[in-house]
Amino acid sequence: MIFAATETDSSQPESTFDLSTYLVKHKKAINLALDSALPVIYPEKIYEAMRYSLLAGGKRLRPILCLASCELAGGTAEMAMPTACAVEMIHTMSLIHDDLPAMDNDDYRRGKLTNHKVYGEDIAILAGDGLLSYAFEFIASKTENVPPQQVLQVIAHLARASGAPGLVGGQVVDLESEGLKDVSLETLNYIHAHKTGAVLESCVVCGAILTGASPGDLQRFSRFAKNIGLAFQIIDDILDITATAEELGKTAGKDVQAGKVTYPSLWGIEESKRQASQLIVEAKEQLAVFGNKAQALLAIADYIISRSN
Amino acid sequence: MIFAATETDSSQPESTFDLSTYLVKHKKAINLALDSALPVIYPEKIYEAMRYSLLAGGKRLRPILCLASCELAGGTAEMAMPTACAVEMIHTMSLIHDDLPAMDNDDYRRGKLTNHKVYGEDIAILAGDGLLSYAFEFIASKTENVPPQQVLQVIAHLARASGAPGLVGGQVVDLESEGLKDVSLETLNYIHAHKTGAVLESCVVCGAILTGASPGDLQRFSRFAKNIGLAFQIIDDILDITATAEELGKTAGKDVQAGKVTYPSLWGIEESKRQASQLIVEAKEQLAVFGNKAQALLAIADYIISRSN
Repeated sequence: MIFAATETDSSQPESTFDLSTYLVKHKKAINLALDSALPVIYPEKIYEAMRYSLLAGGKRLRPILCLASCELAGGTAEMAMPTACAVEMIHTMSLIHDDLPAMDNDDYRRGKLTNHKVYGEDIAILAGDGLLSYAFEFIASKTENVPPQQVLQVIAHLARASGAPGLVGGQVVDLESEGLKDVSLETLNYIHAHKTGAVLESCVVCGAILTGASPGDLQRFSRFAKNIGLAFQIIDDILDITATAEELGKTAGKDVQAGKVTYPSLWGIEESKRQASQLIVEAKEQLAVFGNKAQALLAIADYIISRSN
Repeated sequence: MIFAATETDSSQPESTFDLSTYLVKHKKAINLALDSALPVIYPEKIYEAMRYSLLAGGKRLRPILCLASCELAGGTAEMAMPTACAVEMIHTMSLIHDDLPAMDNDDYRRGKLTNHKVYGEDIAILAGDGLLSYAFEFIASKTENVPPQQVLQVIAHLARASGAPGLVGGQVVDLESEGLKDVSLETLNYIHAHKTGAVLESCVVCGAILTGASPGDLQRFSRFAKNIGLAFQIIDDILDITATAEELGKTAGKDVQAGKVTYPSLWGIEESKRQASQLIVEAKEQLAVFGNKAQALLAIADYIISRSN
């Protein structure tokens, strides 16, 4: 908490903000919204497959970031809830498709069998397609009390982050780098800025777009999100080495086993931790202008480097 | 042309309308728009894979329907071009994913090797995901001279048609029915109304939504499109039996070989042709209220049952 204390209004100590309660409350609201967004109708199998992965738990960090940034930018959680649900649908789609045998070939995810292990590859591909389509339908049809022009901007931003200029592009470079021993830091940064970073940045920026935030503020939200996104990935790489499969809910030590280039493999664990911390410091500086109002996002930034799974 | 003559303004004989020129002109405009929509940038492989299937030819019937319905409803082709491109991106995505080994396992499409045969399964899955995302980005960011509320309605409608309530749901029931000998007419209708019909209906309806068409007119466009969509599928089933692979640009006789239930297998070829013709008659009745202005859509309806590939 030392970084935040220097940046925010010191007359309101940050310790009054209870991140744990905040996360629990918002996660509960998001899980309820996701659950009711996707009832099981005919043909049941596809809705069950979509629900299986969408409601498999997870930290809901992306949708929480979306709600928090909307609130910080002067909006309400209600305005941002359809977009928050959509980012989780897109994130889930990417996990289902990444886990396929033709991609990373993973059997477990969030402590459960992966989608294709339960429903078959064909249904898993279609469940991903269905979630991706539904994400945009959901934003377009469920967002309330937001000017339609801003909703369109959110759709354009999030779709771009999900496609070849974002998530898909990052995954392609990741696949191309597989098995290579000489992956450069530049390539590693590209992979993560796109594969994980783009949608995460979009969560935060879209939350602010919904409120009609100024270009300057959108820039600040974007930089904040890019930094915490990269820090998040560095910590992920470290946890792959130091955490157990039980803590992670997925196979541990996979990167080392696959001979994959990671931040710890380039920098070592200690330097990786230092770099992650520095990114968080710089992320929080971007929000200094908002003072204590930013406490939720600042606390989430700190949480990202302190997490154990 | 006998059906049209009874429905449209007889003072302007339909023969003045040259469908062939109309199709060539619009197809050219669509191909140009698709080509410039998707330049090859880093990482090149994914853009090349997306372009490979998107620019592989095809009749461009869906985007042409979208432009034609927008024009009939009082709009311009320019207003509808981003939506028209998007429906072709979504259609292409569905072909790439359908052809995967885990799905229909096809080696040829539109006379060329399928996407995964050229780029690998992993890239083919991602190329589909990229096209689906880009479709919505493209509508949201490129549509001009249309009130944003109407653009949002188009996105919601098309996303719904692409997802589990449409295309994806139809594909699931199709997969579930594979190898079954007792597929009912009801199930067969469900499959086609969703797998082929939903996006085709969305092309036509979205073209009209962009102009702010009345609910009554949207209903007419919707009924017209549902009928021609089903007729299109019946003709597809017939061509699978009667046409050569060269004419089709894909493997012929696949349905019979796979023991698949089709309209000709339920009804025989002659009755299938009769049903398709009847659907076209009823489709055209929906547009009678527009008189001669509807000549492009009426001629396309006739073309659908007379085509040989």
